[in-house]
Formats: sequence, structure tokens, C-alpha cells
Amino acid sequence: MSLELNNSTSLPNRWHLLGIEGKSSDEILTLVDSAAGFREVLERDIKKVPALRGKTIVNLFLESSTRTRTSFEIAGKILSADTINIGSSDSSVSKGETVLDTAAVLESMNPDVIVVRHSASGVPGMLAKLLKRAAIVNAGDGLHEHPSQALLDLVTIKESLGKVTGLTVGIVGDVRHSRVARSNAFAHLALGNKVRFIGPSTLVPREFVAAFKSVDQKNSVEVFHDLEKGLAGCDIVICLRMQLERMEEHFVPHLEEYSREYGITERVLKLSAPNAKVMHPGPANRGIEISSEVLDGPRSLFHLQVKNGVATRMAILFHAINGLSADIISRKGVVANS
Amino acid sequence: MSLELNNSTSLPNRWHLLGIEGKSSDEILTLVDSAAGFREVLERDIKKVPALRGKTIVNLFLESSTRTRTSFEIAGKILSADTINIGSSDSSVSKGETVLDTAAVLESMNPDVIVVRHSASGVPGMLAKLLKRAAIVNAGDGLHEHPSQALLDLVTIKESLGKVTGLTVGIVGDVRHSRVARSNAFAHLALGNKVRFIGPSTLVPREFVAAFKSVDQKNSVEVFHDLEKGLAGCDIVICLRMQLERMEEHFVPHLEEYSREYGITERVLKLSAPNAKVMHPGPANRGIEISSEVLDGPRSLFHLQVKNGVATRMAILFHAINGLSADIISRKGVVANS
Amino acid sequence: MSLELNNSTSLPNRWHLLGIEGKSSDEILTLVDSAAGFREVLERDIKKVPALRGKTIVNLFLESSTRTRTSFEIAGKILSADTINIGSSDSSVSKGETVLDTAAVLESMNPDVIVVRHSASGVPGMLAKLLKRAAIVNAGDGLHEHPSQALLDLVTIKESLGKVTGLTVGIVGDVRHSRVARSNAFAHLALGNKVRFIGPSTLVPREFVAAFKSVDQKNSVEVFHDLEKGLAGCDIVICLRMQLERMEEHFVPHLEEYSREYGITERVLKLSAPNAKVMHPGPANRGIEISSEVLDGPRSLFHLQVKNGVATRMAILFHAINGLSADIISRKGVVANS
Repeated sequence: MSLELNNSTSLPNRWHLLGIEGKSSDEILTLVDSAAGFREVLERDIKKVPALRGKTIVNLFLESSTRTRTSFEIAGKILSADTINIGSSDSSVSKGETVLDTAAVLESMNPDVIVVRHSASGVPGMLAKLLKRAAIVNAGDGLHEHPSQALLDLVTIKESLGKVTGLTVGIVGDVRHSRVARSNAFAHLALGNKVRFIGPSTLVPREFVAAFKSVDQKNSVEVFHDLEKGLAGCDIVICLRMQLERMEEHFVPHLEEYSREYGITERVLKLSAPNAKVMHPGPANRGIEISSEVLDGPRSLFHLQVKNGVATRMAILFHAINGLSADIISRKGVVANS
Repeated sequence: MSLELNNSTSLPNRWHLLGIEGKSSDEILTLVDSAAGFREVLERDIKKVPALRGKTIVNLFLESSTRTRTSFEIAGKILSADTINIGSSDSSVSKGETVLDTAAVLESMNPDVIVVRHSASGVPGMLAKLLKRAAIVNAGDGLHEHPSQALLDLVTIKESLGKVTGLTVGIVGDVRHSRVARSNAFAHLALGNKVRFIGPSTLVPREFVAAFKSVDQKNSVEVFHDLEKGLAGCDIVICLRMQLERMEEHFVPHLEEYSREYGITERVLKLSAPNAKVMHPGPANRGIEISSEVLDGPRSLFHLQVKNGVATRMAILFHAINGLSADIISRKGVVANS
Repeated sequence: MSLELNNSTSLPNRWHLLGIEGKSSDEILTLVDSAAGFREVLERDIKKVPALRGKTIVNLFLESSTRTRTSFEIAGKILSADTINIGSSDSSVSKGETVLDTAAVLESMNPDVIVVRHSASGVPGMLAKLLKRAAIVNAGDGLHEHPSQALLDLVTIKESLGKVTGLTVGIVGDVRHSRVARSNAFAHLALGNKVRFIGPSTLVPREFVAAFKSVDQKNSVEVFHDLEKGLAGCDIVICLRMQLERMEEHFVPHLEEYSREYGITERVLKLSAPNAKVMHPGPANRGIEISSEVLDGPRSLFHLQVKNGVATRMAILFHAINGLSADIISRKGVVANS
């Protein structure tokens, strides 16, 4: 009786997080604020709230990722949800079965959220279309988006600078292959920030930048192939991971050369952007795209990013099930102790 | 004090599910009814009942299986049990140690249920003999049995047709290598249904059928090598998965040929069994043993099967710990909210 | 407010278990007694106490181990902690990232305990130095230590003999490569027991024994290359696992020969140590380092060892979070039902 009522009211609240593209400034700010609310729970002696008790979260990681999977798993457990891990070695889901059938199988098990990472761009979007009940959260799909990373980066910037607007953000390195770059760029453009893509022309191609033109009506996107010029005036520097296989693919002639021209070091930061904070999505190649001095130094937000990962994913999971309205957390008394 | 009482009363209740062979019609119907009771829990807003709180379930999957493992894991968690996954890549259990020692090690950790999948027929039976406390649930062993699949199929038939008796059931395809075929055949024979094995003689050998003669006192088993004749009059068609490695083993000359002669299509169903419902244990090879039109069409029970998998496994786990008596669920108030 | 209070009082209690070396007799006995207290919980009908509710335990097993990982996981769940498994196939933690960065990433996710197994000696010690909040538990590191195994062995000896002091303990086999041998030797020396290393000189080298001289002020360590002489007078015989790859490394000429000279059989025990209890850390190579007759016979403590593994790890996890004081368990009412 009250069951049916619950079901009929809870279903329309399902909210997918497929990407940052198309999200409004308001939506993004609601998520950032919710994450800040959940962060307090993590500092408690007993890190447990009943917000998602009786909910089932499937972590479908068909491309391996320890840090993101662990972060979502801890987030779900602190919210009292049941979490189920499915990895890429779990064969029947990954091979011999179409994504459509995988989706049907999972849907039929009645999970509330499916967190999905896949090497193919667009898989989370497909699942969101095919499934009728589960909310889909994109934990990274191919070269497309990694929205939870962009959100936790914003939570971290807010914590560090006290604001997420009025900023100039430099995104440095292998922009071409980076879903982190894409999600962050969409987020900062939505918030009205200036975005600079910085790197060699092979890794920051014209076509890539063109993709942002539709959301970039105020000419907020700029491209720099010179690191020093690109960094000048940046408040935030997001240093991307250089994937070593790119060398074999001849996108960069030699790692050493790349490092000399585009590596983020204390020297170049002092010269060009002395007050900038530096971020890295991890795992970092120390001495290649970033120096240890910077990564472990006072301007690094690296450790804060990981820390905020759990709180940000708590917010994402909570809203995926309860819908994205700004007052839902206070209304539900979510952060009360269980 | 009350502890000892609990222990002394709970131990004798241990109930193994090693296979369907030898199970009575009453036992089977109790499980089917229990599963229907648990299905309601899955529709709740908060999917959690305390029935197995403080119980430990080990999912020992030495042969990989995402869907069955996930289904058992979700079932255990909804019942509030602690679930532990051990996979085939967890080395010390799978190699260098005899099954006897693995059993002893696991038993010593005091789990209440061990759900086991193994590529060797008979491993669950061995464990049931060796262990003194844990209930054993067979999640698929070699070419022997897959009893939870047969039970969830019955739950699905009951939901779809309103009954599980008085039926003619066609099992089509690679019967020879199918534990699903065996468990389903035993179940339907126990319920007094007619069972037809349909497929090429290489995949439906005489010896296989002979194995059912002991439980088939009313000549309820028939063999058909012609699909159309076999389907004629079937209420239920269970389409088995064609394992592609069978081609290399020369059981079938060519997949395309197999598909043309034994593939389940809308055309052949309209012709031979226009009212039949079609089932598939998944994962399906679309276009080989079954057409997408059938699998996704109105006569397909495919999605319902997966959905009923969780409820059926909740029933199995519950009875494994509490014993198999028809009134145990109502007596214990199991489906009350936690 | 009360949060800060909680945090400021809980943080100093963090207690690492990196090894047995350097632990006092009092510390060891406190852990053994705590484990005995937790053992009772495992016999309950509802095996669940709220002692670690809202705590997060990461099982970081970068070297695979089913039995130890499962044992820690069950222990954590019975104590109501949230447990997260990270395995060696989870790529980003194991490769491309320094242990320092892995540590930082994990620390940032705010776990209370990190249980770590690693093929390199000293990794748990490094983590304990680098991390500021999480307690580190060594679940086996290279050739260094496996302290939880030594502790569960002591719990088992206490249960079997009623005491852990005044004993002569023979450790037989591949002493050179055994962290189990090292942890057990440190434990027995701390308790004032006599320790004998027994095996061929290739596997019991002089340098190995020299390492114990600093803690062996009473000349309690002896070396025997003759099995019968070594066993004579032993109360406890710890039979080590013979790792088969040692043959290829030419530490032993032939397994059969090793087995004939150093294999633990009923015959040699009757002859030399008729009252000795026999232990094995598992998994055992039956017929190589130990006969089935002994392993499954009345003098074997093998099954008791595994059983005590869960209780011992409950004690370790509990003290890792709450500090190691003898009265903490009774003071906190830990074993009350949840």
C-alpha cells in the first residue's frame, strides 16, 4: 500500500549522470554543494548514514580502475547501500553478449544505480536509454566523459579557493585522448570560466576544440601550444596523465622531449602562474607530465582531490536515486546518524 | 545460554541444494512458492529484510559466471547476510590444494552457506559430504546440474502461466552438454510434465535420455531430431545456449546449418507451437540458437527469468539455512521490513 | 563538536601490526586473549557485533591469497565494518604508480585500517610511516613477516595446550623463504620459548638464524639438519609449506628426497616427538612436506588454525582501530549483540 506509493513516487526521481555536457550551472552547483555536505560525514568517528539503505548499486567496471571503483564502493557503503562489483574479468557480461543483453540482465536484477566504466564512448548513454528503472552513472567512457572526476575537481576548487566561478583554468597535456579534459572543460564553460587547452598540436587538435564551440558562446576557449604563455594568468592548472602508449602511436616524439616542453614544474609555475593551484586526476607519472616537487608541494590539490572523490560520489549516488533538487538532502535529513 | 539453544536448533535445519534429481514435487513447489513470496520484497522502496542477518554466505565461483554470482550476491545482501566472493583467480583455493582441503579451510571459517560453481561435476556433492556445518548450494557443476536455474524457470512459468503442471516442455539444442537441460528435465518429470529433448542426434544422444528413464516411469520423455515436430504441442520451449566451442569439437558441422535447422525463430514457432512461451538461460547467441525477434518478443520469458533469479536465490539461501518446511517463512515473519 | 572530540580521542589509538619482531610478551598475550574473546561470537546463531560499525577496512592484496583475505574479510564483516577488496589485478594501484602514491590515494579515501599483502618485504612498514590516519595491518610481506599467522598459531596452541609458554617449538622445512617461520620465531622467543629451525642447510642457512641473535639472549634458538634429532622433545611442530618453485632454484635436489628426509610423517613423530602437536599454515602439499595421516590425524591443529584465523583477525582489526590496551574489549562491551 505505502509500497506502491513509494514506488510510484520514487521512480520519476531517477537521475542519470552521463556527462557534464548540457548540465546547467545550477545543476553543477547543486552537486558541488551536496558533496560538501557529505564531506562532513567522512570526518565522523562512525562514518555511516542510512540514506541509501535497501538500495542496490552495481559497479560495472568493464575497464579496470581501482581508484574510481574503490571511491564509488566506499561512497555507497557509507550511505548504507548494498554494493555489487562486476569486473572486466567476469566473462559473460563482457563477452559473448551484446551490451543490450547485459543491460537487460542487470536491469532485471532490479538495481537502483548502475555505475558504469567502459572503454567505448557512449555505453552509459545507451544503458540510460535501454533501462527503465536503474539510474546510470558514468564512471568514465572511452574518450567521452568522466563527469564524477570533473565534479570532484570542482568540489576541490571550491574548498581551496572558496569559489568555482571567475576563474581561468588551464588544462595541460594529452587533451585529445582525455575524458577528464572534456568533462572539466564542459563544467568550467557552464560556470562561465575561461578554459585553456595547452599542449603540442598533435595532442590539442583543432577539431577537439571545435567541439566546444556550441557551448562556448563567449569565446571562453583558447588554445596554447606554448606552456609558459598558456599558464600565464591561470588560477587552476589541470595536469593530465600522459599515457605512455601515446608515444608508440607517435603523438609525441619522445617522452623526455614532451616533459621538457610541457612538464609541469615548480620553475615554470613560478615564472608563469605563481599563484595557481595544480590538479592531477591520477595516477601521475612523476617526472614526466608533473614533477614530484609540484605534486607533493603546497600548490598541489592532488590529495584533496582523492579525498573529495568519496564525498562527491556520495552526492552523485544520492541524487541518482533521489533526484536532483537542491533541497532534497536537508528535506530528507540525510546526514543524520544511522 | 540461549546461544547454545539456538545452535542446537539451527544446525539440524541445514539443507543442501545439490541438484533437482531426487527432489519431490512437494519440495519443488515449496521452493517455487517461497520465491514468489520473496519477489514482493524486490519491489519495495527499501529492499532489505533481516532474515539472514549475522549469517555468512561464501560465493565460491571456481568457474566464472557473472549473472549467477551477481544474482546470489544480491539475494544474500537483500536478506542482510554477509557475502564473501571467492573467484577462480584467487589462486590458493583453486590450485595446489585438494578440494578436500579447500572444503576444510572454508568450513573452518564457519560460513552458513557455501554457494559453489565448479567445472567438475559432483564438487558440490563432495562438499556436502565433507562439511559438517555449512549448507551447500550448487550454482552449476560441470555437466551435472544447475538447480537454481531450473527453479527460477519454474517460478517464471508459474508467474506467466499460473501453473507448473500439466505442461509439455521442449528443451532445444545442445542437450548433451547442458546442466540446465538436466535440472529442468528432472524438475518437470517430478511435476508430472512431459519433456521433449529436441536437437541433432549428436547433441541429443540416446545415453543422455536413458539417464532419465529411472525417474520417467510414465514414459514422459521423448526425443525429436526434427524441430517442427518436436515443438508441435509444446507449452514451454527452453532454448539452450549453443556453446561455440562445440563446433570445433565437431558436434555440429556448421553454426549456420545448426541455426537453419534448430534455431528458434518466430516463423517456426507460429507454424508449430503458436501459443508456446520461450525461455533461455542466457547469455544468448542472437541469430544462432534464437532470433532477436523471439528473444525480445511477447512470447519471451527471458527478462522475467533473470528478474526471478534474485527472488529464487533468496528462497534457496533462506531455506538452506532454515530448512525446507513449507511454513517456515510465514512462521519466522521473514518478509517483514528490517 | 562531539565529532572533534571523537576524532581527537580516536586518532592516537591507531595501532599498527607490522610484524611480531619487537612486540613484548604482554602485547602478544593481550592479542591472544582478545582473540579468544571474539571466538565466542563465531559460535552464535547471529554472528554479528557492532564493534566496528561505520569503520572502513581496505584489504589491499597485491599478492594473491584466498585464505588470508577471506579470513580478514569475514572478520571485518562480523564486526560490522565496511570492507573493500583491492586485488593485484586492479591495475592502477599495482603498476604505473609508486607505492607512495598508492598510499596517498588510499589514505585520502579515509579508511580506518589498511590490511596489506605485498610480495616486497617492508611495504606495510612504509605505509605506516607515510600515512597519518589509517592503521596498517601486515597480512604478509615478502620474506619478512606474517604476524597474523603467528598470532593465530598462538591462539591455537593456547586452545590446545592451555598455555603458550614453557614450550619447545620446532619449525621444519623451508625456513629461509618463510615469513611464517620468522613471525613464529619472534613470537616464541618473546614468550621465552625454545625455537628450533629444522631443515637442510640450504633452507636453514646460518645467516637466517643470526638474525634472531639480538632477541635471543638466552640462547633459545637451535638449528638442526637432522629431522629426528630436531623433533626430539618438541611440544609443537610447525611444518612449513614447501614451495615447489624452490626445486627449480636448486635449494633442494629433488622433492622426493626432501620428502624422505624432512617430511613430517606419523612414523617420525612417534619415534621422536610422540606427544607433539603439529601445525601447518596451509595450503599443504600432502605427501611432500607432510603426510595426510598427520594432517588429518588427532595431533594436527590444522583445522583449528583456520578456525582461529577469523577470531584472531577480529582481534587484530579491533585493536588496530581502538588501540592495544588489555581492558579495551570489556570496557567497550564489544561482544554484546548488535
